[in-house]
Amino acid sequence: METLLLTGHDIRRILLHVGLDSLMDEMIARLTSALEAFDPERGDTVIPVRQGFEYHEPATGLLEWMPCMRKGAHATIKIVGYHPENPRKRNLPTIVSTVSAYDTTTGHLTCMMDGTLLTALRTGAASAVASGILARPEAKTAGLIGAGAQAVTQLHALTRVFDLREVLVYDVVPETARSFAQRVACFGGGLAVETAPLDALVRTADIVCTATSVGIGEGPVFEGIEPKPWVHVNAVGSDFPGKTELPAELLRRSVVCPDAWEQALREGECQQLAPAEIGPCLYELVQHRDTCRFLQDRITVFDSTGWALEDDVAMHLLMDYAAALGLGTRLPVEISSEDALNPYHFALPPVERTVPAGSPEPAFA
Amino acid sequence: METLLLTGHDIRRILLHVGLDSLMDEMIARLTSALEAFDPERGDTVIPVRQGFEYHEPATGLLEWMPCMRKGAHATIKIVGYHPENPRKRNLPTIVSTVSAYDTTTGHLTCMMDGTLLTALRTGAASAVASGILARPEAKTAGLIGAGAQAVTQLHALTRVFDLREVLVYDVVPETARSFAQRVACFGGGLAVETAPLDALVRTADIVCTATSVGIGEGPVFEGIEPKPWVHVNAVGSDFPGKTELPAELLRRSVVCPDAWEQALREGECQQLAPAEIGPCLYELVQHRDTCRFLQDRITVFDSTGWALEDDVAMHLLMDYAAALGLGTRLPVEISSEDALNPYHFALPPVERTVPAGSPEPAFA
Repeated sequence: METLLLTGHDIRRILLHVGLDSLMDEMIARLTSALEAFDPERGDTVIPVRQGFEYHEPATGLLEWMPCMRKGAHATIKIVGYHPENPRKRNLPTIVSTVSAYDTTTGHLTCMMDGTLLTALRTGAASAVASGILARPEAKTAGLIGAGAQAVTQLHALTRVFDLREVLVYDVVPETARSFAQRVACFGGGLAVETAPLDALVRTADIVCTATSVGIGEGPVFEGIEPKPWVHVNAVGSDFPGKTELPAELLRRSVVCPDAWEQALREGECQQLAPAEIGPCLYELVQHRDTCRFLQDRITVFDSTGWALEDDVAMHLLMDYAAALGLGTRLPVEISSEDALNPYHFALPPVERTVPAGSPEPAFA
Repeated sequence: METLLLTGHDIRRILLHVGLDSLMDEMIARLTSALEAFDPERGDTVIPVRQGFEYHEPATGLLEWMPCMRKGAHATIKIVGYHPENPRKRNLPTIVSTVSAYDTTTGHLTCMMDGTLLTALRTGAASAVASGILARPEAKTAGLIGAGAQAVTQLHALTRVFDLREVLVYDVVPETARSFAQRVACFGGGLAVETAPLDALVRTADIVCTATSVGIGEGPVFEGIEPKPWVHVNAVGSDFPGKTELPAELLRRSVVCPDAWEQALREGECQQLAPAEIGPCLYELVQHRDTCRFLQDRITVFDSTGWALEDDVAMHLLMDYAAALGLGTRLPVEISSEDALNPYHFALPPVERTVPAGSPEPAFA
């Protein structure tokens, strides 16, 4: 019983081999397929509402577990921390994460990997899928409210679906907004990236992404500014009870589409709505893409709380690339005993005992 | 940001250095201290009721996550699989597990290790703590119903607290009962281990442990047999809705003490009781040990569903030994980026980019 461990170094090798654009394209394609196939009635994919610990000592933070089971195949569990003081105080990402896959025949941990890039990647891809259905295909201007790590993959994913020309950027920390252009310079292709005041950004953008660390009860991040009548908003940062980014007034006259209904009602923009005011879920949009096209003339909101199905898809994408490239390290994380009925057997008799075949001492131990 | 990984090999080294008896003694001592300090009103230790996936394809199984947070310090999350066909079909333990610790300042995964031995160890220790309060100190005969992996550590833990002379063993698989004596031969000390029919076992034992894989709705594992009027039962196997081991009739005239109240009502023997019929929790027994001593003359049941506080204590015990012995491997599981605001930074510019200081390429990569 060995576990494939993919470290940040392995993920980096995947990125270098595959390229950012191809990786994001494949992520968008696979997520679209998974959403097309998702059927909550059939019950072959089980996604409980995530739970977590919230705390304010020693720092404001949140640690959540996000499980997803593909019946008869595997389960994935992402553990994700949200610590908004990380970048400023420790030069660490706000979101730090790992994700694990389990064989549901035996309970064995088959793979574990970094979940930090994965989270940014799949959150970007989900917005691209939603925007591809709800935003006008000719969208040229994106507006980013919150210019941190998630904004990078939001923009990247949108550039893979839209022929964007202009990006307007706002952040409560002016330096974060100013430095954003450098972070996305690698996307290339005549994209003009400029900081903008909130009102100009909201009024001008065809697609808005909100990805902020606004405090609980401190939203919305803009108010009283009229967007274009066809604007599509990806509301990415609302992912905790009491944390919302958009004005309730705007939500009420928008078609609001959550990634996960129950979770969005508890943690997303949908907290500000009654259940009857909520539109179709992302998977329903994908499955009824053609009949939803008329929504491109309306104000629409993708209420992206982050869904474990996205993590499951992203993890298996990276696992497939790792397998193709021969990356990763196999480690005997779990104890292998020759006698399954004796938890002490693997340590007996002392010293002289040979290690069971199939679980060699790792060379670096 | 590196993660300390303790594999089965490291755990084996700890066992060989420390010795089974000292390890169990220390586990019992630390668990006792943690239970003495536990105060649900104070709220500095947060333990949600565990959740999990249950399935019957491709095999009957259960995959659960068990989180525990020590506010202002850390969180631990154990992922534990219960797959009763594992020993017979795959020579794997029924319970396969890993456990992880997170820094709640940053969300960083600080340590990950095997949880299989840990689970057996702490479940044994919990029964020893409960038995030390509820069973007669002069108990000489233990009866084990279910002679698999958990029975080994049940007996081991009991031998550290009681001067046992005789062990009666029953299992629905006769060979599992017959081979049990070999598995516990290393405990030494004049312990007569014999298979026994259920009725003799239940009638004779001063302390009974039930640790079976009885199916959902298929309990109890014995019925209509009168135990000694002072018997103490550690009911270890009841840990899932519908899965119970003891006759309701016996529970009703026993003092039933759960490890975790809400969880036991949902998954433990307490499912068969009304809330008002449930006795004190294990931590309450420990905190009022002297006033509970009269229960040694009664029939008592420790309803052990398995509690995340036990896992937290066991993990930190093993981490402390690993630190003292210099064991484990430090791996950069999570991506370290020089720019916390750019999830792609760690992979740019391509090929030539130097790895940031503090996260060297591992030697074995």
